[in-house]
Amino acid sequence: MTLSLDDPWLVREQGVDASCLGSTESVFALANGYVGMRGTLDEGDPRHAPGTFMSGVYETHPLAYPEGGYGHPEEGEAMVGVADGSAIRLLVDGVPLDVRSPALQHHERVLDLRAGTLEREVLWRAASGALVRVRSNRLVSLTQCSVCAIRYEVAVLEGSARVLARSGLVVNESPPEIENDDPRVGATLDAPFEALAPGRERAVGGLLVHQTRRSKVRVAAAVEHVVGTDSDVAAAEIEEGLARADAGLTDTDAAVDRDTGVRAGDGPPPVTQEADPPPDASVRTEVEPDRIVTSAVVDLRAGQRLVLVKHLGHAASDESSADTLTELALAALTDSVALGWDELARRQRAFLDDFWRECDVELDGDPELQVAVRYCLFQLLSSAVCIDDAPLGAKGLTGSGYSGHTFWDIEGFVLPALTLLRPEAAARLLGWRSGRLDLARERADVLDLQGASFPWRTISGREVSAYWPASTAAMHVNADIARAFDHWSNATGRPVEEVGGLGVLVETARLWISMGNTDTDGRWHLFGMTDPDEYTGVVDDNVFTNLMAQRNLRVSAQLCEADAQQAARLGVDADEIARWHETADAVYVPWDEARGVHPANEGFTSYREWRFSQKTDRYPVQEHSHYAKIYRRQVLKQADLVQAIWWCRDAFTPEQVAADLEYYEARTVRDSSLSAAVQAVVCAQADHVDLAYAYAREAALVDLRDVNGDGAKGLHLASIAGSWFAIVAGLGGLREDHEVLELAPHLPSALTRTAYRVHWRGRLLFVETTAQGTTVSLPRAGDEPVDVVVDDRTLRVTPQEPARAPLKQPAPLRATPTQPAGREPRA
Amino acid sequence: MTLSLDDPWLVREQGVDASCLGSTESVFALANGYVGMRGTLDEGDPRHAPGTFMSGVYETHPLAYPEGGYGHPEEGEAMVGVADGSAIRLLVDGVPLDVRSPALQHHERVLDLRAGTLEREVLWRAASGALVRVRSNRLVSLTQCSVCAIRYEVAVLEGSARVLARSGLVVNESPPEIENDDPRVGATLDAPFEALAPGRERAVGGLLVHQTRRSKVRVAAAVEHVVGTDSDVAAAEIEEGLARADAGLTDTDAAVDRDTGVRAGDGPPPVTQEADPPPDASVRTEVEPDRIVTSAVVDLRAGQRLVLVKHLGHAASDESSADTLTELALAALTDSVALGWDELARRQRAFLDDFWRECDVELDGDPELQVAVRYCLFQLLSSAVCIDDAPLGAKGLTGSGYSGHTFWDIEGFVLPALTLLRPEAAARLLGWRSGRLDLARERADVLDLQGASFPWRTISGREVSAYWPASTAAMHVNADIARAFDHWSNATGRPVEEVGGLGVLVETARLWISMGNTDTDGRWHLFGMTDPDEYTGVVDDNVFTNLMAQRNLRVSAQLCEADAQQAARLGVDADEIARWHETADAVYVPWDEARGVHPANEGFTSYREWRFSQKTDRYPVQEHSHYAKIYRRQVLKQADLVQAIWWCRDAFTPEQVAADLEYYEARTVRDSSLSAAVQAVVCAQADHVDLAYAYAREAALVDLRDVNGDGAKGLHLASIAGSWFAIVAGLGGLREDHEVLELAPHLPSALTRTAYRVHWRGRLLFVETTAQGTTVSLPRAGDEPVDVVVDDRTLRVTPQEPARAPLKQPAPLRATPTQPAGREPRA
Repeated sequence: MTLSLDDPWLVREQGVDASCLGSTESVFALANGYVGMRGTLDEGDPRHAPGTFMSGVYETHPLAYPEGGYGHPEEGEAMVGVADGSAIRLLVDGVPLDVRSPALQHHERVLDLRAGTLEREVLWRAASGALVRVRSNRLVSLTQCSVCAIRYEVAVLEGSARVLARSGLVVNESPPEIENDDPRVGATLDAPFEALAPGRERAVGGLLVHQTRRSKVRVAAAVEHVVGTDSDVAAAEIEEGLARADAGLTDTDAAVDRDTGVRAGDGPPPVTQEADPPPDASVRTEVEPDRIVTSAVVDLRAGQRLVLVKHLGHAASDESSADTLTELALAALTDSVALGWDELARRQRAFLDDFWRECDVELDGDPELQVAVRYCLFQLLSSAVCIDDAPLGAKGLTGSGYSGHTFWDIEGFVLPALTLLRPEAAARLLGWRSGRLDLARERADVLDLQGASFPWRTISGREVSAYWPASTAAMHVNADIARAFDHWSNATGRPVEEVGGLGVLVETARLWISMGNTDTDGRWHLFGMTDPDEYTGVVDDNVFTNLMAQRNLRVSAQLCEADAQQAARLGVDADEIARWHETADAVYVPWDEARGVHPANEGFTSYREWRFSQKTDRYPVQEHSHYAKIYRRQVLKQADLVQAIWWCRDAFTPEQVAADLEYYEARTVRDSSLSAAVQAVVCAQADHVDLAYAYAREAALVDLRDVNGDGAKGLHLASIAGSWFAIVAGLGGLREDHEVLELAPHLPSALTRTAYRVHWRGRLLFVETTAQGTTVSLPRAGDEPVDVVVDDRTLRVTPQEPARAPLKQPAPLRATPTQPAGREPRA
Repeated sequence: MTLSLDDPWLVREQGVDASCLGSTESVFALANGYVGMRGTLDEGDPRHAPGTFMSGVYETHPLAYPEGGYGHPEEGEAMVGVADGSAIRLLVDGVPLDVRSPALQHHERVLDLRAGTLEREVLWRAASGALVRVRSNRLVSLTQCSVCAIRYEVAVLEGSARVLARSGLVVNESPPEIENDDPRVGATLDAPFEALAPGRERAVGGLLVHQTRRSKVRVAAAVEHVVGTDSDVAAAEIEEGLARADAGLTDTDAAVDRDTGVRAGDGPPPVTQEADPPPDASVRTEVEPDRIVTSAVVDLRAGQRLVLVKHLGHAASDESSADTLTELALAALTDSVALGWDELARRQRAFLDDFWRECDVELDGDPELQVAVRYCLFQLLSSAVCIDDAPLGAKGLTGSGYSGHTFWDIEGFVLPALTLLRPEAAARLLGWRSGRLDLARERADVLDLQGASFPWRTISGREVSAYWPASTAAMHVNADIARAFDHWSNATGRPVEEVGGLGVLVETARLWISMGNTDTDGRWHLFGMTDPDEYTGVVDDNVFTNLMAQRNLRVSAQLCEADAQQAARLGVDADEIARWHETADAVYVPWDEARGVHPANEGFTSYREWRFSQKTDRYPVQEHSHYAKIYRRQVLKQADLVQAIWWCRDAFTPEQVAADLEYYEARTVRDSSLSAAVQAVVCAQADHVDLAYAYAREAALVDLRDVNGDGAKGLHLASIAGSWFAIVAGLGGLREDHEVLELAPHLPSALTRTAYRVHWRGRLLFVETTAQGTTVSLPRAGDEPVDVVVDDRTLRVTPQEPARAPLKQPAPLRATPTQPAGREPRA
């Protein structure tokens, strides 16, 4: 996959590489948090894994263990693709358009981050010699949650051709990618939907209403087409097309002049040339139980074109009736048709204009990183803007990787980023999580523990992980989830109970109390935990987990003290709060005196060293070595000790940060996309600014450059959010976990200026750093003045007067850390 | 299941309890190590899990993981039942004999430990009023490995009846009990055999030749019947039968007078009463691909009987051709027919006479324990006497529990017992294991370790465990296996290389070297191990594992030094041996100074205590609590620290033994049948003699009293062997791991005398203990004199002069240990 990343707002693919269709399907996926569409080619083939997904739409399947055990989940869950309306197959003189054919003369796709659309241009030389141009433009509406729309235009530039477009809405044709060999799982997920009613034709299109067979989630999907023809292809366009066709596919430098493209609205445009009236297209719709296909066929001469606007409406729920969902889908569809393509596109752009005004990050000096970070922001927004009462999967709605499950890293990275960027979206996601508190209580009960134990992976809220050493043992997820709640409360200045957070904080505190043990030495321990690292498992006194539990206990105590009435309703009394404080104070944090570093867990630094230099071709490590070995070697997938330095920063002195970072940098292989952002933040904290910048690039480009080679399964949302933190908390040194927002700006040698926006306690802050220093301003009229700390100095910011601080020169305590051979930051 | 255990040589069941058919099928299973037959009722129904098994006959199946990982075995293995000839269905006047029917008047089964046969007597009142007596007698020959035989007799005692016996040989009708939910596993194992040739009729019977579909193990099974009738039922027998029928099923006290039973040979006995010639039986055989059935039908009047002797020959191999196996099966069958039932039975008894002469244990004062220990010895012999180039499964050939896999406890308990009882059988089993060294080398390579890593569970020699925390992490199996080799060498006085042991010792030593790590403190650690306990997993510096590794390294070094030439051929030089010694000397053994006990592993004593009193109904613990919890709580399935006291006794002072035993007794729930014997041995060592005796009873009665409720799956061979150690190494204080055999005899208050025999360096020793003291003699003429240590005094024993020592009074250092509530020794 080679994408052009030279424009600050465009992600551009020129030509088409069939070997990386999967990752481009992910990169060009469009979504709004309610519905999402993979970036498949319009004609559906070739393809890697097509699919339209909706948040909360999943199927269950049996989980069979070759050697099971008590409390192992018996039902799995997998996000399944709903009725997919992405495909519009094209036949030119009866020959299907296929990008693998030598008839292809030109191919380009552009994701426009300001427009919020995926545009495509194809030139095709028919056997007759006719030259046909296809332009499509797709959007998943950020303003109308249930709406997707595609404007599809076929123009004949030379000669004449008969063109036939077949536009489908198809269910049960995009089985998810699964890693479970059990044939019952494949059988369940291959065609998970049953029709609740026969497919129904209506207007130029139709309606499908289906239900998953086991989980009983209902989905209504409706499609309507506005079809027209005209003879308005301008001479200049024709010339340009002919020139491009002559240049052929190799000329990838010839960028599309995007402003000459026709921006025609729905239906036939006003006829301007009386001389050459366009032919009528013949249109018909076929309906089957799992499929609605509308065909439009027309004979076109040079200068004529067929324009088809496809409107799609989706609605899904496991509670609403089929009738209600049908109404919702049709309402969305009707609205979309009424708005028309142009207005949909205008609203999309206007919405994004607002977004960029409030959330943009500017990076002068590195155009590739600039567009990458904007891409990340766009996808972060797209993952969450319309989500409601549903979990956000690790890949959002961009692919079926990880079966669409949500993990702790959503709360760990995505929610804190959304909290500072789109606090209302964060609130809705937190509301989903607190709404699953009863299920987490049930799980704790199964585990014979108190309080609530949140799942490692889930869609419904139930634990569905089938490998307990990396899930049930990873109890840190509870503290990570709790942290997202109190971060939100602290950053917004609003009560945690607004998002149902007090129950979460109380029940996670109770969980820790029931799990840890105070030894005769008076120190409180957590045994048998698996840490975020995942290459060290079932260990005792993991520093990250212990410190996060300590943090959880303290914050829970503080918030209960702050709202004693609400706390009392949850059965919390002064004794219980006192116990949380006492326990937090007693938390044991191992320290290796001999080596002068924190062991990631008790004993870690005495494990055998990993022979990195002899295993340079054995990555990812977990695919080449057995857990039984990895779990007790000094090799880290992601450095949770380093993450602890970020998330539990008050527990580390600067000298410890420097020593720990050096130690773990040398042993972290970063097989997880979660790691680079964390390393960026802490490297910057330790004044290794250029190294931080290198990690920030890796995090931001993880999908655009398919750094991990697994991009086909969907985008890495946590890394996407992490890359924003790599810039803001890394280069910017932002810390939002105390009463006053703190900044510690750095400027890597490659950049001349950074600028970003954050939402903080109801205000919008703009932070700009150049070699001359940092300016913090309140660009929005009416925002209240606020204090910020820059490099340990408290400054007052008012709408009238920005705060300014000089740029501090980095003064690292140690030399730049080194990484295992071949595991330096990539991008 | 209520068995009468009041006769020193008989295990007797009176009546029949359909609710515990499974466990009686196991208890009454007969085997010889090559072939084994479950103790099913002759008529096949009702039944729990019928089956004839052969060692090394297994099928493979896919292992699917809901979340897999590198190095997880992809193929499972399961012992599958071969052609089963146990069934002889009987119809009396067209009505099938069924023990659930009110027509049943009397039912008794007796396993005779001197005869080596399972005898049965049934009285049946036909609808016509006729009284029919069925007597069957089964044996699996201990002298002719491929032979099983059943003598089946139907006599009419009153009235007249038409009797029809259908005797079958059936394949693919006894699917193993599996715990794997994957439907492919069930599908694979339900009918694992395909016919290599059509079933063949020959003589009065026939031949089946089959092959497992995936693993390609071939099995030939042949059957031949000798059928006859006579009118020789004695008047006394008739009278006795009538009386018994009148008494009915409730009169279980009316023991069979076993000496009045007819002991007729094959075929029609000489006719003694001219007056009433017996009718001819009509005999025919039906053949299908998976089934051969021979029917005999005859009208009998009072005093007449049908006698059918069924001879079975089995041969199996994954190497030999079908023709060869056919020849072997037919040869065995021909021989069996030629010998006839009486001679087969005579040889069986003669063989056992020899066995008891050399291996019997006598316990005066506890008749139940007396017969239980003899039962254990009988089943131990039966599991191993004919085994060759095949593994011994945890359940031998008595059931399909644990899929027929062999585990470390065979080497841990069964082999050391066989070494002292039947050293040649032990040698053959060791030979099988050393023959799998290359597969263990391959596994070590997969794990990126040096040397050889033996499987946790296997039939072929390949690792087939699907749950690595309790298998691959349980590296102690390698030391346990190594120990069986050097124990054998030490006890027999023969070179370890005779059983291929040097390679095993060298490669296991190399494994340890590649796995452990010397820390900066100079101490050598093993991290991430799972110990035999199984309720503590993936822990660091487990005392048992560390000490066993130390032992392994030392013994490997010593044996290489003793045979430098052979060692050199394995690439072992002086440097490597030196490294083994140094490493062994550096092994770290954790010690809890505050509590004055060994923690089972680093940190164990600081884990949360288990709330035993609140969980008295939650056993076995693993079925009521999650591993994530159990693994870091102070609850033990079996006390491996206590096992270390036995197996690595030189590492513990008497004070430590007393303190450790007290500590772990209070925390061991004995959910594993392996534990009681170990606790018996160490309780005796700590002079808690009556507690040791109670544990010995539990171990010896585990199957006869179905202590764990899982007897239906097959016998607990390790506990069977362990119960012998509980007597010999526990009450007798025998230790065989040093140069001189050591004894420390105890006499529990319930016993007045113990006596046992052991093979030691080519001699047969007889050890007898009464209140007056202990006598050690050499009963076999020609045995060389030998030294033994009794209670730390070295004594000389010659064939002429036994050694005598007074009985030492127990002087425990601490009070008798207590157990968790409800987990006291059971039986």
